[in-house]
Parts: sequence; C-alpha cells; structure tokens
Amino acid sequence: MNAQPTNRRVILSSRPKGVPEADHFTVEDADVPEIGDGEFLIKTEYWSVDPAMRGWANDAPNYLPPVEIGAVMRSFAVGTVVASRHPDYAEGEVVSGMFGWQRYAVSDGGNVDRKVAEDDLPSSLALGVLGLNGVTAYFGLIDGCAPVAGDTVVVSTAAGAVGSAVGQIARIMGCRTVGITGSAEKVSLCTEKLGYDVAINYREEDVNAALKAACPDGINCYFDNTCGPISDAVMTQLAIGARITVCGTVALTDWDPIPVGPRVHRQLMVARARMQGFLILDYKARFPEAIEQLAAWVREGKLARNEHILEGAETAPGAIKMLYEGKNTGKLLVRVD
Amino acid sequence: MNAQPTNRRVILSSRPKGVPEADHFTVEDADVPEIGDGEFLIKTEYWSVDPAMRGWANDAPNYLPPVEIGAVMRSFAVGTVVASRHPDYAEGEVVSGMFGWQRYAVSDGGNVDRKVAEDDLPSSLALGVLGLNGVTAYFGLIDGCAPVAGDTVVVSTAAGAVGSAVGQIARIMGCRTVGITGSAEKVSLCTEKLGYDVAINYREEDVNAALKAACPDGINCYFDNTCGPISDAVMTQLAIGARITVCGTVALTDWDPIPVGPRVHRQLMVARARMQGFLILDYKARFPEAIEQLAAWVREGKLARNEHILEGAETAPGAIKMLYEGKNTGKLLVRVD
Repeated sequence: MNAQPTNRRVILSSRPKGVPEADHFTVEDADVPEIGDGEFLIKTEYWSVDPAMRGWANDAPNYLPPVEIGAVMRSFAVGTVVASRHPDYAEGEVVSGMFGWQRYAVSDGGNVDRKVAEDDLPSSLALGVLGLNGVTAYFGLIDGCAPVAGDTVVVSTAAGAVGSAVGQIARIMGCRTVGITGSAEKVSLCTEKLGYDVAINYREEDVNAALKAACPDGINCYFDNTCGPISDAVMTQLAIGARITVCGTVALTDWDPIPVGPRVHRQLMVARARMQGFLILDYKARFPEAIEQLAAWVREGKLARNEHILEGAETAPGAIKMLYEGKNTGKLLVRVD
Repeated sequence: MNAQPTNRRVILSSRPKGVPEADHFTVEDADVPEIGDGEFLIKTEYWSVDPAMRGWANDAPNYLPPVEIGAVMRSFAVGTVVASRHPDYAEGEVVSGMFGWQRYAVSDGGNVDRKVAEDDLPSSLALGVLGLNGVTAYFGLIDGCAPVAGDTVVVSTAAGAVGSAVGQIARIMGCRTVGITGSAEKVSLCTEKLGYDVAINYREEDVNAALKAACPDGINCYFDNTCGPISDAVMTQLAIGARITVCGTVALTDWDPIPVGPRVHRQLMVARARMQGFLILDYKARFPEAIEQLAAWVREGKLARNEHILEGAETAPGAIKMLYEGKNTGKLLVRVD
C-alpha cells in the first residue's frame, strides 16, 4: 500500500526516427514535486495525444526544440490546481497547457494556455474541440480556406480531432462537406454523428473516383491534415479559385529526406488555387474569440463531442503510433488518475 | 516578283508532346483575307513567343482548347489596322491581341487586348513590359507575393520577359532582389541592366549555397516561373510568412504524367507560407491601371526595355523551343515585315 501520491510520468528514453513507438518511452514514478513562491501544482486529468508530438520527439528542425532524452514527454494536458503559491492561480481552478505526460506538474503560469472556465462542460474538451484542435479547425478553416456557403469542403482525417471540428464548422457555415477517413466505423461516425454529406473510406474506395462523384463541381476548399496520396487525389479536382489549408502531414512519417510526390504547381496555376501553410500558435491572441464561439456551438448541440479516451498512464507510450495508424476514433486522450 | 502581298503564316502541322519544335510547324503563304462588315484587317509587326504556347499546342487540359492541327498557331501579336469596316477601329491604329502567327489577321475586335496608345514608345513593348508579360509581373508580384519594402524577393527566369519586369518592379518597391538565371551573359544583364542586387547562374553555381549567401534572412517572396530544381532550392529557404506566386513551370516540359518532386507541404507549414497559382487572364479588367503605371516607369527610365527579337516568320517555328532552352535574353519576339 502506497499512502503517498506519486508523480507517474512518461519519459522519452530513446530517440525515435519518425513515429515514436511504445519502446521509445518509459513510465516511472517520481516524488510529487514541491512548489516555490510564484508556483502552483497541477494534478492532470487528461493528457493529449497529438500529431505534433512526432516532431517534438524527433531530432529534426521544428518550431520547438526536440524533447531531450530522459525528459518528460512534452504534451498538452488539462488538470486542476491542487496547491498554489501564485497570486493568479487558486486551488480548484482548472487549467490547460503544456504540462507534459505527468500526473503532477509544477507551473509558474508560463506554460498555461488558459483557465478552463466552461465548468458546465467536461474538462477533456479543453484538449479537443475547446482546445488547440478546435481553434486549429476554426482558424485553419476560416482564415486558410475562407469558405463561403455553398462551397464544397473536403477534409482529410475527417473523423479526427481537428478534422471532425473542421467538417462540423464548415457545415455550420452552409458548406457541402466531404470527409475522407480510414475505416467503415469512421465513415459511419462522419455521416451519422459529424454531419458530413459524404464520407469516403480511403482504404476501401478509389479516392479519385469517390471524390469525383462527391464533388461534381470540383473542390473549393481542402483542409489537409495528411499530405500523401489523399492530398494528391484532391489536387487533381480543384475548382477554380480553390483554397487549401496545409495543417498536417500525418500520412508521411518521415521528412528527412523530403519525400517526393506529384508536383502541385500546375494544378495551382490552372485552378488559380492557393495553398496556405498553417500553424495555430500564430493565432494565440485570438484563441478566446474562437473558444467562445466553439463552446456556444457545443452547448447548442451543433458541435458533437468526439473523443477517444485511453485509460491510464501506461497507455500513453503507444498512443502516438496509434494516432499515426489511424486507430483512434476522435480526439485521442489519456485519462490519468 | 510578287506584286500582291501574301499572308505568310505559321501552321501547327503535327501534334507535339511537350515542347513544340520547328518540325511541328510549317510556314506557308496564303491570300490576304477579305474583311466583312464589322471586321478589320491587321498587319502584324511583331509576334509574341510565350511559354503558354507549349500548352496551347499540346492536346492536354488547359485554360484554352488546344490549337487544331492545320490551324494558324495561336499567339499574341501587335500590328496596325490597315483596313476597317468596324466602327471602333480606324486605319492606322495600333492594336495588340491574340492575332496568331500570321502577317495579316482579320478581327471583329473580340481578340483585341487593347489599342496601343503609347505612340511615343516602340510597339513591340505592347507584347512585353506593356503587355501580358508586364501585367503578369505587376499583378503576380503585387497580388501574389505582396512584397513590402525590405523584403528579399527571389525571381526565377530573372532575365526573361516576365522575370525581368518582376525584378525591376520589386526593386522599385524597395525590396532586395535576387535573380536566378541560366548564363553568364544573363547574370550580367541582371545586375548591370535590370538592377538585381544579386544574380545566380543556376547552370554554374550551387543554387542552394548561392541562395543562402544571397538571402541570409530567408526568402520573403518568390516569383516562380520555373518549377523544378530551382524552386525546390528556394523552398528550403523560406522566411516565416513567405509568399510564392506560381506563375509558370518552364523547367518542366511535360505534365502528363504529373512529374514528381519534393513535397512542399511541410515547408509551407513550418514557414506558414503561401503558394498562389496565378493566371493573368483573371486580371483583365485591371490591365489599364497596370499598363499606365508600367508605361510611366518606362518613361522615367526605371523599367528597362528587355527584348530579344528574331527576324522573319521563318524563325517562329523554332522559337518556342529556344524559349524553353533559355537561349533568349529578354522578351522573345518575331519581327515580321
């Protein structure tokens, strides 16, 4: 029997090349850290599993430095303040931020994304549709794709954490939505729960033919989470003036050397189309407006909760690979206790 | 001795696959056509040679239907109205438009781009810097690349008809300009006549290393006329927020099947960069504002005349290949008499 709480945490123990797998991590117990003046202690409730974690675990140029070997894996998490010596954070407040895959995190506030004020909604949503995934969908779609009512909007990883929000927001905006996903189960999720007009199973169907049938007037907007063959098919069917948000490249596991694929230049020219690289962190100052709108849509029942929750810290090491294999249905989270 | 004028013209006599060569054309003499009511006769002075003519001569999807075998090759030209039964066009007026590679063209006005009013400047400029090339440079740079003073602007085919105008306009806007071109002669042209800060000879230099030296803070704007290896090098050195105009793909001679190359998606994401496909015909309503500005710059000596003129209709059949081989210095034209 262990009367003392321990800080169960997931350490990056070796350097992956490409997608991190379970044996790149170790799960260990450490003492619960002490807090100093100006600090507070967070007990995490959910850990996030995100495609960006592949980049953070690899030793390759990125917009953040790689996680060091022996360090707690960097991740988003949500939890409750359980002790505080910081004037702005009180015991009992729920916060989301970059707390890492650990049960207890000490913070001085610098790694907090926000205080989660929606106490009528589950805290896990702060890592999904009311977190980075939701705001990524919101700004990536609205700013990058600039959809207008009547547009045909294609979404890859259509049932995933970001894609499911993109599809639903596009539908709210009056667009025809076509989702591309990787299993019959997710196709049903797309059309029955997420409101897509059409969903395509890229593992079973001829994506080119299915897109042609689903988008007879061409594709006005494409929210690209994949790169790879799915995007290649979309690029052949752009409508004039198409807008593409390049938000993720989950279909390609290695960028060193840069993988080759069909050149997009002529397709962009013929359609006078635009491809816009997107990084949500550029939009930080505008998160509150997006979260307010997204929370309103959740409360109105327009944005469905779409989560895939793994139980316990021991599930975390294999979770990034699971994400890249598309085995999750919805936002992938680890629940910790 | 032939007292009657003849309509010397260049016929597309067989279907090329890729770049049209001399033997895809025949030069023939026909009777000068008669005009009917509402028509006028143009005697052409210069024929244009443009990269787009590859696409027009091939039997592939394009923004215009392919030129039929046996028809006069489609091209831009400039000439003088020599007879008119059209109320809006008077004998002696200079017009530019899609008159084809023929000495005499009948028009009802539908294929006229504009009346060339700059009678203080050579009419050939209406096919270059005061024609489609100039307005392509103007709108492609300003709208597609949105340069601001201090930006580093890289231009491929820097000494060519469009590129030479892009580089000069960017310089006028206060940008640092880096041109990429294909011979020592053109490097000199770029730095001595066209005002580039740096010019790189891609046939002799390591383009990656030369770009790194020329653009220490990364590339803010790229006006892409080439696709291919030059663009691949540029894409590795984008500054955050870079803007790319995809205006031409002269480095790649065949798009069926789509050629492969390094995927741009991750570079776009990391730099939050934008690639915009560009077709000048979309800007038709705004040509007058651009031409007025460009003519003013020509008169002020800020925009250099940059032409490569071939003599006689017999030079036209080989001219498209010459263009794709980069053997021209400046806007390639055929002078007809």
